[in-house]
Amino acid sequence: MAARGRLIALEGIDGCGKTTQATALAASLGATLTREPGATHIGARLRELLLAAPGDEAAAPSAPVPSPRTEALLMVADRAEHVALVIEPALSAGQWVVTDRFSGSTLAYQGYGRGLDPTTLAELVEWATGGLGADLSVLVDVPVAVAAARLAAGPGGAARLDRMERLGPTFAARVRDGFLAQAAADPSHWLVVDGELPIDELAAHIVAAVRARLGERPAASR
Amino acid sequence: MAARGRLIALEGIDGCGKTTQATALAASLGATLTREPGATHIGARLRELLLAAPGDEAAAPSAPVPSPRTEALLMVADRAEHVALVIEPALSAGQWVVTDRFSGSTLAYQGYGRGLDPTTLAELVEWATGGLGADLSVLVDVPVAVAAARLAAGPGGAARLDRMERLGPTFAARVRDGFLAQAAADPSHWLVVDGELPIDELAAHIVAAVRARLGERPAASR
Repeated sequence: MAARGRLIALEGIDGCGKTTQATALAASLGATLTREPGATHIGARLRELLLAAPGDEAAAPSAPVPSPRTEALLMVADRAEHVALVIEPALSAGQWVVTDRFSGSTLAYQGYGRGLDPTTLAELVEWATGGLGADLSVLVDVPVAVAAARLAAGPGGAARLDRMERLGPTFAARVRDGFLAQAAADPSHWLVVDGELPIDELAAHIVAAVRARLGERPAASR
Repeated sequence: MAARGRLIALEGIDGCGKTTQATALAASLGATLTREPGATHIGARLRELLLAAPGDEAAAPSAPVPSPRTEALLMVADRAEHVALVIEPALSAGQWVVTDRFSGSTLAYQGYGRGLDPTTLAELVEWATGGLGADLSVLVDVPVAVAAARLAAGPGGAARLDRMERLGPTFAARVRDGFLAQAAADPSHWLVVDGELPIDELAAHIVAAVRARLGERPAASR
């Protein structure tokens, strides 16, 4: 039986570059690449509900804004499905898994961002995941202004931003604080990296740091 | 300012007749009639995800079965949205509200039916509703065999049953036990009625019992 795999989450505010870094890290490690929300069939439908921007008729006619608790419950429902159908089976089979967002995002966005009680959110996440936490969460940290500039400069510009990406700099600043606070409170499970480094340099730094923290992946399980 | 309204939930296993009785009760009381899941825009999408039967391509291509915790979280997300957008505003405005299913269904179906921990489910429901409970839950109780025969005899027969309705008599028996246990544990908030009575006789019994328990609705708020 293969040794159990490891779970690595890339976290950060929208526009920090974590999707690019998650893709590079998974390739370097030969790991399964996945993301939240939206990695399962049900999750894809929830992603539409959660991220449709007002006026985005194709994704969600009339695109209602969920109440804060509804938003939190839908994010956590997506995670429960993600863990049950994708992450846990992969880890049990010895695969390493890199996920673009995981539990850290719930506390940052729905806790620090929306103002929901962090203790309750932590219990909710604990239950939904069956207690599965990331072996390492990598926070790709950038100043809010840098992330906002990247989002505005992306293909399609501001018009194609999703609902969460449109929440603006005050919200993003609270979310960033939420990520930094989690990293500071649990340094053995978090790694903070500088998202303003050049992409390749940052990718090399992350893979080296992950190997230093979690060890080399056993050759037999690759 | 109008006196705060009352919330009455009709509960029971699929095929018990609660939808018919909820409709009749709301008409008798001049109350707002609503249901779970599916009363809000987001809820309608969740209802599709939750109840689509396998092979029901129109409602949900490939109709995946959610994991038990995902199912519970989606049901509770629907309720959070329902309370925030429909129930709480109506109660605050002095309206009485009759809902076809509410929190009792989560403990019966996801707790007794699926085997999830009832204490955790109760905490989850408490959080999602902001502590809003039904003033009275009316359990329309019928033997499982009676409910099954009604479902099979309905328009379209067994072919149009949804995913929950197809779970079979062993599951339905656990759910019925779950409802009866909740009613026995909290008699001041539950009323158990005989779902085998003729429809009109049962409707008259329920409206009389509701008035006896909750009082007449103030004329000014009608």
